[in-house]
Amino acid sequence: VITQEIVKQLEIIVGSHNTSVDEAILHVYGFDVSDVSGTPDIVVRPNSVDQVSGIVKACARYKVPVIPRGGGSGAAGGAVAPTGGVVVDLTRMNKIMDLDLENLQVTVQAGAIIEDLNKFLKPHKFFYPVIPGSDKMATMGGVVANDASGMRAFKYGTAKDYLLGATFVMADGSVVPFGCKALKNVAGLDLLRLFSGSEGTLGIMADFRVKILPLPPSRGVLVAYFDTLETTGKAVIGTYQAGVIPSAIEIMEKSALEVVQKYRPQINVKIAEAMLLFELEGNVDFVKYQADKIHHVLDVLGVKETQFSADPVEADKLWSARSLVGAATSVLKEGYNRVYEGEDICVPLTEMPRTLVKMRELREKFGLGCVIFGHISIGSLHPAITIRKSNEMDWKAMKEMADEIHKWALQVGGTVTGEHGIGVARKDYMHLMYPEAYEVMKKIKHALDPDNIMNPGKIF
Amino acid sequence: VITQEIVKQLEIIVGSHNTSVDEAILHVYGFDVSDVSGTPDIVVRPNSVDQVSGIVKACARYKVPVIPRGGGSGAAGGAVAPTGGVVVDLTRMNKIMDLDLENLQVTVQAGAIIEDLNKFLKPHKFFYPVIPGSDKMATMGGVVANDASGMRAFKYGTAKDYLLGATFVMADGSVVPFGCKALKNVAGLDLLRLFSGSEGTLGIMADFRVKILPLPPSRGVLVAYFDTLETTGKAVIGTYQAGVIPSAIEIMEKSALEVVQKYRPQINVKIAEAMLLFELEGNVDFVKYQADKIHHVLDVLGVKETQFSADPVEADKLWSARSLVGAATSVLKEGYNRVYEGEDICVPLTEMPRTLVKMRELREKFGLGCVIFGHISIGSLHPAITIRKSNEMDWKAMKEMADEIHKWALQVGGTVTGEHGIGVARKDYMHLMYPEAYEVMKKIKHALDPDNIMNPGKIF
Repeated sequence: VITQEIVKQLEIIVGSHNTSVDEAILHVYGFDVSDVSGTPDIVVRPNSVDQVSGIVKACARYKVPVIPRGGGSGAAGGAVAPTGGVVVDLTRMNKIMDLDLENLQVTVQAGAIIEDLNKFLKPHKFFYPVIPGSDKMATMGGVVANDASGMRAFKYGTAKDYLLGATFVMADGSVVPFGCKALKNVAGLDLLRLFSGSEGTLGIMADFRVKILPLPPSRGVLVAYFDTLETTGKAVIGTYQAGVIPSAIEIMEKSALEVVQKYRPQINVKIAEAMLLFELEGNVDFVKYQADKIHHVLDVLGVKETQFSADPVEADKLWSARSLVGAATSVLKEGYNRVYEGEDICVPLTEMPRTLVKMRELREKFGLGCVIFGHISIGSLHPAITIRKSNEMDWKAMKEMADEIHKWALQVGGTVTGEHGIGVARKDYMHLMYPEAYEVMKKIKHALDPDNIMNPGKIF
Repeated sequence: VITQEIVKQLEIIVGSHNTSVDEAILHVYGFDVSDVSGTPDIVVRPNSVDQVSGIVKACARYKVPVIPRGGGSGAAGGAVAPTGGVVVDLTRMNKIMDLDLENLQVTVQAGAIIEDLNKFLKPHKFFYPVIPGSDKMATMGGVVANDASGMRAFKYGTAKDYLLGATFVMADGSVVPFGCKALKNVAGLDLLRLFSGSEGTLGIMADFRVKILPLPPSRGVLVAYFDTLETTGKAVIGTYQAGVIPSAIEIMEKSALEVVQKYRPQINVKIAEAMLLFELEGNVDFVKYQADKIHHVLDVLGVKETQFSADPVEADKLWSARSLVGAATSVLKEGYNRVYEGEDICVPLTEMPRTLVKMRELREKFGLGCVIFGHISIGSLHPAITIRKSNEMDWKAMKEMADEIHKWALQVGGTVTGEHGIGVARKDYMHLMYPEAYEVMKKIKHALDPDNIMNPGKIF
């Protein structure tokens, strides 16, 4: 569908050195972290809102698919091109445009990497609290477009909660600024929170004005080892009911502890049915006060084995086990590697114990690897299925297992995606989850992108 | 436009005892807190989603305006009927349908009053943190439809941040459930956060599933008196930069202190250029730690006169001055009463000092009363203009003054409405604030309500 004429026009907009039609390069852009793929016809790398606008205008003229792409760290195929088209690589637009500390805000381009932003803010003792596990790769555009969150979602909320403004490039290429510098604003429909989570299907967000927060004075980490899965959920609920809101509560099921132990023995992680990690914030006294409250909750539940530290180095050490899980998943079963399907469910807190048991059962049933961990603070679970990637039967079994995981989440009142988005990977569940609301979403999509050129095949 | 045929159909749906066509009653429904009015042709009081659906279907058939209404405490004319039509009074739908403490959520009908919800939650040591000043009247439906907030917005966010699910009744009367019981969910477009703040222009929200939080263990209140307005803004910014996030920072400018002193002398409020009230949360030690940090900030700024208490009774007493301002505004100038125009601006924190000075200047210039207070934590200001309501010149001057206030807010990078919504009152500023984005909003409105029956004349 991409003619030489379109290529020429795009080259004029971004320069031929910022345009790729080389097959090897296009191939690479055909992937993200998921096993969904789709090679674009051309990749363009704009460096300004105007260039993005020009690109979309050209694509609109020829009704060619436009696929916005950030760090490519998505896990649902949101940034690949299953029907071909133009990938708009936003990573050159990675500038921090304006730091306005006194107004608690910063303006960044869509391609700015989350970790870079936080490194930039740290000397000022401020931070952007939406920190997904992929923060070394993930860009602000991707984070907002997927309404990402990460470990600190219960206390700090998600990408949506930090948006003050943005510049949209609509499906016709028009540039639409939105928001203002005030910290609260209810003038008209909230386009920002509609676009956040829309995964590039309504337009491209070229830059953002986001709220930032002062870093908390102190931090502590409490680790607890559990003999039964049942108790983990109760410990989380008990913590909230004791009036404590940790900045994170993470779970590592036995499989996750085992892979970390195998992957980095010097950490000396203990093997139990599950481990919970609580991160606490405040001044030192308040951190200890919260730890005491949690210790009491754990005590009542019969959880005896815990470790706690409010010392920065020691706390980091306790935390390190959790941060290694992602890298370690593939050591669970030799020859088995991670695939990203059925890996982002979120369930009500009360359903967490049953859900953990179910994940174990499914792992048995399908004979695949599955490392189980997640943000138990919000009921988010990332069952990391591993398979022999060259084995067709494994792929088939994995698909069935992922389907059972998704249907389980819906059955217990949860969602098929808590953080990573629908993309291509989870599209089939939209009508199951939202038989009526999906139709409303389609009306909005059609109103803003009548020719369906914006990231087609994702969500819709 | 409302024929006997329509009235009959509506009576069949809700019962004739839940239908009003009596002129006196319709007259009352023609008002909210603002000076915008508009008498409906009929008022219906449904008690279920099905009845709401039936009402909207009937109205859609005849293309008759549908005006959803909660407590009527809105300040922008959102719940009145300037073009006539059917007011859907949702106050009978005031039930708390399901308390699910362990999952940190509660399901309530649209007509539930915020204070009632919090009274219900208090014995469980939980609360719903979105508490507007009007929480004794304001309903969940109105709060969500306006994305209301109140004093605790900086720390706790706004109505949008607590939504897990809702039941929408669309403009064609169809019933659309949305959301789930998981605390995080990114499946598809976020209809909830599009509807929140849409002021009833896209459909009616009949019930909500909202997140609730554990009550904080302790609370302290710090009050500081300022000799200059300039310093107030600096104190707020300094507090955040010191790493302290109070649950509220309120400002009472001299006029607000004076009216409270006149209205309730026994409170013995001090008269200064301005007073700030900081509310702090945590355990007792952390509350004191934060108070110390703020004291240091104030000290550096030369603010010497402060009071602090972490004792519940004493803290409440310090706080009481602020809670009386609303009731006291009319004692500023005898014979002058409050009108709600230009009363909800929100500006960047750095612009707060200049904005306070500007409000004083405008008060002088127009010779009207104006009590100045607001949620300085987020840059929100409520200049309460008072006029002689029988004096036509006063009305004219007030309109001009409100216009200058609104334009000032836009000029300094703020918004004409931080909390109370656009409604009818601020509609004229939409194109000024959002020359491009307003057109995008109109497309969405048209896609979901092609006949413009949902709360016509508000926002659009």
